[in-house]
Amino acid sequence: MTDLSNVTPVDAEDISEWDMTADVVVAGYGIAGVSAAIEAANGGARVLVLERTSGWGGAASLAGGFIYLGGGTALQKALGFDDSADNMARFLEAAVGPGADKAKIKDYCDGSVAHYDWLVSCGVPFREAFWGEPGWEPPHDEGLMYSGGENAAPFNEIAQPAPRGHVPQMANKRTGQKGGGYMLMKPLIDTAEKLGVRTEYDIRIERLIVDHEHRVVGVLAKRYGKEIAIKAKRGVVLATGSFAYNQQMIEAYAPRLIGRPGAAIEEHDGRAIRVAQALGADLVHMDATEVAFFGDPQLLARGILVNGRGQRYVPEDTYPGRIGQMTLLQQDNQAFLVIDEESYEAALETETSTSFFRTTPKWVAESVAELEAEMGLPESALQSTIATYNLHAAQGKDPLLGKKPEWVKPIGTPIAAFDHRGHTAGFTLGGLRTDLDGRVVHVSGEPIAGLFAAGRCTSGLCAGGYVSGASLGDGSFYGRRAGAAAAKDGVRTGVVH
Amino acid sequence: MTDLSNVTPVDAEDISEWDMTADVVVAGYGIAGVSAAIEAANGGARVLVLERTSGWGGAASLAGGFIYLGGGTALQKALGFDDSADNMARFLEAAVGPGADKAKIKDYCDGSVAHYDWLVSCGVPFREAFWGEPGWEPPHDEGLMYSGGENAAPFNEIAQPAPRGHVPQMANKRTGQKGGGYMLMKPLIDTAEKLGVRTEYDIRIERLIVDHEHRVVGVLAKRYGKEIAIKAKRGVVLATGSFAYNQQMIEAYAPRLIGRPGAAIEEHDGRAIRVAQALGADLVHMDATEVAFFGDPQLLARGILVNGRGQRYVPEDTYPGRIGQMTLLQQDNQAFLVIDEESYEAALETETSTSFFRTTPKWVAESVAELEAEMGLPESALQSTIATYNLHAAQGKDPLLGKKPEWVKPIGTPIAAFDHRGHTAGFTLGGLRTDLDGRVVHVSGEPIAGLFAAGRCTSGLCAGGYVSGASLGDGSFYGRRAGAAAAKDGVRTGVVH
Repeated sequence: MTDLSNVTPVDAEDISEWDMTADVVVAGYGIAGVSAAIEAANGGARVLVLERTSGWGGAASLAGGFIYLGGGTALQKALGFDDSADNMARFLEAAVGPGADKAKIKDYCDGSVAHYDWLVSCGVPFREAFWGEPGWEPPHDEGLMYSGGENAAPFNEIAQPAPRGHVPQMANKRTGQKGGGYMLMKPLIDTAEKLGVRTEYDIRIERLIVDHEHRVVGVLAKRYGKEIAIKAKRGVVLATGSFAYNQQMIEAYAPRLIGRPGAAIEEHDGRAIRVAQALGADLVHMDATEVAFFGDPQLLARGILVNGRGQRYVPEDTYPGRIGQMTLLQQDNQAFLVIDEESYEAALETETSTSFFRTTPKWVAESVAELEAEMGLPESALQSTIATYNLHAAQGKDPLLGKKPEWVKPIGTPIAAFDHRGHTAGFTLGGLRTDLDGRVVHVSGEPIAGLFAAGRCTSGLCAGGYVSGASLGDGSFYGRRAGAAAAKDGVRTGVVH
Repeated sequence: MTDLSNVTPVDAEDISEWDMTADVVVAGYGIAGVSAAIEAANGGARVLVLERTSGWGGAASLAGGFIYLGGGTALQKALGFDDSADNMARFLEAAVGPGADKAKIKDYCDGSVAHYDWLVSCGVPFREAFWGEPGWEPPHDEGLMYSGGENAAPFNEIAQPAPRGHVPQMANKRTGQKGGGYMLMKPLIDTAEKLGVRTEYDIRIERLIVDHEHRVVGVLAKRYGKEIAIKAKRGVVLATGSFAYNQQMIEAYAPRLIGRPGAAIEEHDGRAIRVAQALGADLVHMDATEVAFFGDPQLLARGILVNGRGQRYVPEDTYPGRIGQMTLLQQDNQAFLVIDEESYEAALETETSTSFFRTTPKWVAESVAELEAEMGLPESALQSTIATYNLHAAQGKDPLLGKKPEWVKPIGTPIAAFDHRGHTAGFTLGGLRTDLDGRVVHVSGEPIAGLFAAGRCTSGLCAGGYVSGASLGDGSFYGRRAGAAAAKDGVRTGVVH
């Protein structure tokens, strides 16, 4: 655990000697950090990246690699999908709210096609293949997939469905060594190196250094217990990830995640947020969380998902992250998947990238009444749910939740149920308020001079909801903005020291 | 709307002349402010209260007046209710989480009996009468009532039910002029006056004044457009209420309340939170909200409440604020009350303090199938819910949600439904992190010298859940603590200027 006991800013006058100096100092070498480093270097700045671990990558290189992009990217077009920035914004506003930042969504959607091209220009490979089955990730190296429930109720009535989960082509999916996240990060790291970005590993930032005009001019860091003062002539970019592993912050801001951090790394200790808060930085949507659901989407789509009262609550063919959020946040983390034998066997014949979710059912029965009793549900709770479902399923309809006809058919017997109670985990989405240039915004509404941030230490696109690819997406998009703005910062304002 | 454009601290060296001076300066004259003022004065401090409006009271004097107290108060004992601090804490930990501050709950429960006695000693009147019917408030001047679902599922299995909603005796309930909140505030204001507390009205705090050691030594305020510098020799107590009326903060922190502020006053603009954030103050549970449900509890208990899918989701005989939270936060604000004619007429014969919630049903039908169709629910959605409910109700049971047997009986015909979609409003519960002495805590974990806070600009007892009386309860309890600590502060540390 990082010692958070002192996050107060240090007065620049108290620094007798600077151990290192750069124009732009980037803290954290994950997706936001590398994107910032590249664009700061492109902007003519000498860039120094400080990484706490002994290697680049952050949470990004361990991730599946989805980058949420649309509006008509080259990949979408090549695969025959129509999309527009407006259409993409309409979906996102519906899916990632309430309270989503509409200006940021518009900005991101408008810049999405160009951002895809930039990734490609940096060497990130995307294979022109679409994966259309329910799932968390493509099982092979397909480059495009639905990753937010765009083609499921209620969103398929709100905006024209288009897949926007762009996945870098994996080098060797079978070994699991080089997944989409790695294949995103590697070319970006190579690009940064070619641009002369300097990197120092095993350095952890501790506090910000501020001059007499309240401008951030450096960071105080630690390497193997030794304090190091690093001067940033133009700006500091914070990119050290979420607070999923900061117990106190989780309790205070996102208590539903107590005991269930997921898809984050232990270095996600919230320190970037804390050091900026100490300067009066504003926060946004600190309660928002991504929530993964440990279930196989191929099974989910073919069955019905019921809560602790035996009631359906979400279209089972939607984005599994939405199922996770609705289960944890609205159903007290109580969920059961009910499926008949025929559908279960059909699901087992499909391909999946998450075969570890293909567990065997906990209960099997010859009748719904028997299953209901074995599951411990009150008499008639599940029977009435299934009777109503079957009534409409006989006509290929699901008026209650709008599951698509292709997945709707009456549930027969033998019948089984999976116990998915408590089967969720997630990471935090809230963080520092930043403007469209990645500047950290003070509670007074003005940017804090010299301070920038991107990635999951900031509030990005997502307020309440989530789509897979939003984190690598807004992390890289606003990482670039932050790097570019930092490179210009001291120069433009004439306060280069 | 208050101008929030500048909440940055002012350097004490830039103050050429102090317009007013006191030992302890209290901002806001609601429940937290008056409690702080009394105890600061009792602690030997010269106290100055700054109130933004032209009179005392805040949101408190407009409130119903519940103060959440227990553990065996004199009133509980006189009315024959057993309770203990441990029992009260057990209930609160279950009801106001997840993420509730256990140390604060224990502290509050342990001090609850003495706090009741203190209120009585200040002249707050409580009538020894219990109101045991479902409702938002007692219809007359009864002094005690269940106000948090203590006697409903699931809490009645977790802790021994005891009513803890203490209501000051109203002077004239019929005219509505002097409700419980007024009758709580008036004696406290009188007490403060007797102790020599000075009050200045029509003064709005704008910024905090800080000395070279980062100690808060005063406030910069405004009266009729003129800036006023007020020196606080020992401490400043912030007590200006919630951020329910700060649109930007609602969007960023508690977006479910967009467009539906309730039981707050427009002065609740979050400024106390902002000026402290600018000093690096930590925040807690900014997403937490009280949620009122605009329905008559006497009708609710006798009917069933279903969501937009025709499913039950909450025991209808619980605290209506819990119904509000579960409706807004977990059912997308979709709710219908379904009740048969016989139960409807029985409810109309009862007394209520909220007769304006006794509207007529939107739909009336001779059969459930007909009602279901008129409500626009899918065929069988409501029919199956009622069939399951009736199956168990015939035996006086509700295994699905645990409604108490006294309210459970099969639903017959004719049958009606009320449209409660969107019928919620609420105020914010999150705010500054404070310690048990009401000191505002910096993100570094240390108190900010000279700065105290209480009431709804702080995070009090409630994290996710709520009980009626928690706001006047923790506001008065920690208001007292803050006042007492502020009075001692400069003296003890020897930094009196």
